Amino acid sequence: MAVVTLDGQVCQTGDALEPFSIQSISKVYTLTLALQSIGDRLWQRVGREPSGNAFNSLVQLELENGLPRNPFINAGALVVADVVLATREDPQAQLLAMIRSCSGNPHAKDDPEVALSEKANGFRNAALANFIRSFGNLQQPIDDVLDFYFYQCSLALSCVDLARGFLFLANQGRCPRSGNTLLSPDQTKRVNALMLTCGTYDAAGDFAYQVGIPGKSGVGGGIVGVIPNQLAVAVWSPALNVKGNSLAGSAALERFTDKTGLSIF
Amino acid sequence: MAVVTLDGQVCQTGDALEPFSIQSISKVYTLTLALQSIGDRLWQRVGREPSGNAFNSLVQLELENGLPRNPFINAGALVVADVVLATREDPQAQLLAMIRSCSGNPHAKDDPEVALSEKANGFRNAALANFIRSFGNLQQPIDDVLDFYFYQCSLALSCVDLARGFLFLANQGRCPRSGNTLLSPDQTKRVNALMLTCGTYDAAGDFAYQVGIPGKSGVGGGIVGVIPNQLAVAVWSPALNVKGNSLAGSAALERFTDKTGLSIF
Amino acid sequence: MAVVTLDGQVCQTGDALEPFSIQSISKVYTLTLALQSIGDRLWQRVGREPSGNAFNSLVQLELENGLPRNPFINAGALVVADVVLATREDPQAQLLAMIRSCSGNPHAKDDPEVALSEKANGFRNAALANFIRSFGNLQQPIDDVLDFYFYQCSLALSCVDLARGFLFLANQGRCPRSGNTLLSPDQTKRVNALMLTCGTYDAAGDFAYQVGIPGKSGVGGGIVGVIPNQLAVAVWSPALNVKGNSLAGSAALERFTDKTGLSIF
Amino acid sequence: MAVVTLDGQVCQTGDALEPFSIQSISKVYTLTLALQSIGDRLWQRVGREPSGNAFNSLVQLELENGLPRNPFINAGALVVADVVLATREDPQAQLLAMIRSCSGNPHAKDDPEVALSEKANGFRNAALANFIRSFGNLQQPIDDVLDFYFYQCSLALSCVDLARGFLFLANQGRCPRSGNTLLSPDQTKRVNALMLTCGTYDAAGDFAYQVGIPGKSGVGGGIVGVIPNQLAVAVWSPALNVKGNSLAGSAALERFTDKTGLSIF
Repeated sequence: MAVVTLDGQVCQTGDALEPFSIQSISKVYTLTLALQSIGDRLWQRVGREPSGNAFNSLVQLELENGLPRNPFINAGALVVADVVLATREDPQAQLLAMIRSCSGNPHAKDDPEVALSEKANGFRNAALANFIRSFGNLQQPIDDVLDFYFYQCSLALSCVDLARGFLFLANQGRCPRSGNTLLSPDQTKRVNALMLTCGTYDAAGDFAYQVGIPGKSGVGGGIVGVIPNQLAVAVWSPALNVKGNSLAGSAALERFTDKTGLSIF
Repeated sequence: MAVVTLDGQVCQTGDALEPFSIQSISKVYTLTLALQSIGDRLWQRVGREPSGNAFNSLVQLELENGLPRNPFINAGALVVADVVLATREDPQAQLLAMIRSCSGNPHAKDDPEVALSEKANGFRNAALANFIRSFGNLQQPIDDVLDFYFYQCSLALSCVDLARGFLFLANQGRCPRSGNTLLSPDQTKRVNALMLTCGTYDAAGDFAYQVGIPGKSGVGGGIVGVIPNQLAVAVWSPALNVKGNSLAGSAALERFTDKTGLSIF
Repeated sequence: MAVVTLDGQVCQTGDALEPFSIQSISKVYTLTLALQSIGDRLWQRVGREPSGNAFNSLVQLELENGLPRNPFINAGALVVADVVLATREDPQAQLLAMIRSCSGNPHAKDDPEVALSEKANGFRNAALANFIRSFGNLQQPIDDVLDFYFYQCSLALSCVDLARGFLFLANQGRCPRSGNTLLSPDQTKRVNALMLTCGTYDAAGDFAYQVGIPGKSGVGGGIVGVIPNQLAVAVWSPALNVKGNSLAGSAALERFTDKTGLSIF
Repeated sequence: MAVVTLDGQVCQTGDALEPFSIQSISKVYTLTLALQSIGDRLWQRVGREPSGNAFNSLVQLELENGLPRNPFINAGALVVADVVLATREDPQAQLLAMIRSCSGNPHAKDDPEVALSEKANGFRNAALANFIRSFGNLQQPIDDVLDFYFYQCSLALSCVDLARGFLFLANQGRCPRSGNTLLSPDQTKRVNALMLTCGTYDAAGDFAYQVGIPGKSGVGGGIVGVIPNQLAVAVWSPALNVKGNSLAGSAALERFTDKTGLSIF
């Protein structure tokens, strides 16, 4: 676990410097890239509502004609990836550069083995991509979209990297380390709102209720939380609960906000 | 529209003193009564997740065996009503007393004609109640549950009443006017979290994104918002959008948070 | 088990003279009454497709705006009951008279205790009726519709009664015993088609595949089958499979058609 | 339109000798191949129930864990194709040989342009295949399964070919022309039952009701019907109704069974 405050203090415990696959946590960065590229036009292709379904469900997508509920379910992240591919040159390099700059870790990188293994078993994501394409809501070649998606999921960061790397969301969009502005204050608030309502899949309500701060989880066992104007916090523990969120990580964050009294509510 | 701050200032405009049917906004008060009665045991009978469906949908209820997703969809409010009926003597009087005390309006009352008219057309709610009962998740007589539900929906308050009446949620559970403690600080944070993720039906994500504060809407055209440690705000305008939330009310709240820069994110 | 041929032969075995609750098998008779009353106009209010869902599901009804898939799921039978109530004087007496005449059993009657007990636990059917009413597809008072529905389900007949009572469907609509014409030859073929595609709930495909004749089952454990131009056959055994059809009854019918080589295919 | 009787008479009208893409009608032949290969073990991987959904829906597949409802919806046909690929050498050649032999048309062949064009737009089928694979219910390489599927859909036959080619299903499984036995009498009855309950997609109930015989349709505008022990009939007219069945074709078959009084009911 690691906590990094806006004024640069770092508190850490356990394996806080150990890199792990950030998986879906990467969706916050690709969303940031897409918002930088096309702004609010993104919302013509992705919704902003909690899905009420599992993160990789196709049911809702069928009922709603290929418009994913939000950018954090897999379907939405594929559309976001499609936007990034359409609007960026060398999107993998740009994503990596952003993450290295935010996290202050110039050695952060992907794990090609993880990407390869996910691709080999990624039938559900391939189904989603083909399905969205059948509704016309993907434009780049499906294999390119999937490759980029598996790449972003395979990026490896430590808790300290992640907490530092999410500070821009606690700081109105400006990275306190590099001084770079990634999002406008308004966009930042909205990304935080999206994390609160949709960041932990079908457990977002429970997470808001128990933890009370915007957060984003990944199936690698990581969760990052943001307390606006104060700090970012990251936890990592691989065992997952039935909703796909880190079991010990959720408990740690709940205890953290309980003991500190920190909450957005 | 009316804004009431924790230190007692009141700003108002338009028909802010005109009473109207608060409808689903009443669900916050009945939830408060139920939490006072049985605390966290409530969550064995109602979930805390956004539903991803229309407020009166039966689909999810069937797939999830009669456990409503959250206390703010109709199905959840019926279970909350069942708890209140089971644990309170003269529940209508207790609900009214709580609302009068919070709002500081001793003349607040229900509109029997509204209740009667809703009962006469309440086939969908009767379907929901019978359906939940078929799963064993209602225990009081169905007609009593429905009568209480139609009663709570028919309560009439003005914007000033509502903003004042929700101040306890901006004040860690204590009503600044009466000094009464309705909920613990912890429970208060959690009710606010529930309002943010589930308070405006299937538009909660959009509301969080656009307005950025916990809020609860009613089909009477009212919406109340809470900014913790600062204020409560109420708007009223009868025309609804497709999701069942006040059209002008949502826009007014969005502009209000935009211009003031107030947000929880 | 009982087999009755068009030329009047009766073969029986086991408790073939024991009356039992025919339950959903009664839906064929109420459908007959409704077709006599309003003919093909019925299909404006009920579909003719297999539902692909459990017999008492509300999901499909919501997605399809209160139009039940077919007259043999509970929702469809409630609409049929509504039609019968709207077009017949003393509908219970007319239904009973039709059944007594067809079956040749003048003592056939309902079991009020069964009806009462089903009413007391009929929350799911009450939910369905209220739900359909909310879409405007029920017109008679809900309690009247439910009472008629519980009455028809409580009618008690033996296997011999039932086999004889369904002979009109093997005889182009004319009851060979009384000589009365209940349906036109064309209507008869169509009721048989409906029984084949929808008569055994969500197991109709399997029943067609295994047994190969039109049939209608009830949760009382009875199943009646029709072989056009030849015979009707009824079985009764209370233990049900997961789809709500008699376990031993299905097996007996399968063996019956296997050994005799009788099939419509 | 063409009618061919068991004793070899052929009646035809219109463009009955014009070949067209048989599309989903081919699913009856691939089902026959799969039943020849593995018999009733097929039903461990495909159901036999009407789906109650559109032919290319993914919703039900998700709820039922990758087990398609029946072999005539696209998902089921993909599993059937997987079985054929796993159990046959040169499956395309074997399928073509069977169809040429049954239809008595040695020149019947596929249309590679149709297959190519369907492949290029086959995102929905690619989604289905990947989705089924994610549940482990496809074993051959996905591209091979899809290629075989697009191949079978692109086969072109005339109405006379098709009516003659389906005669074996009216003749207890034996092709009257070649004398070859394709299915046992028992299997034949069951394939007819499947066509009746599932052969015309989500309109099977209506087709059974209106036409009253087992039939299989394709989106190329063809429909074939079978009257056991008598004849097979094929119609072709490209304009489709909303359920994906030939509009004029359905009407022609309804009039045909009406006027001749032929029906299995």
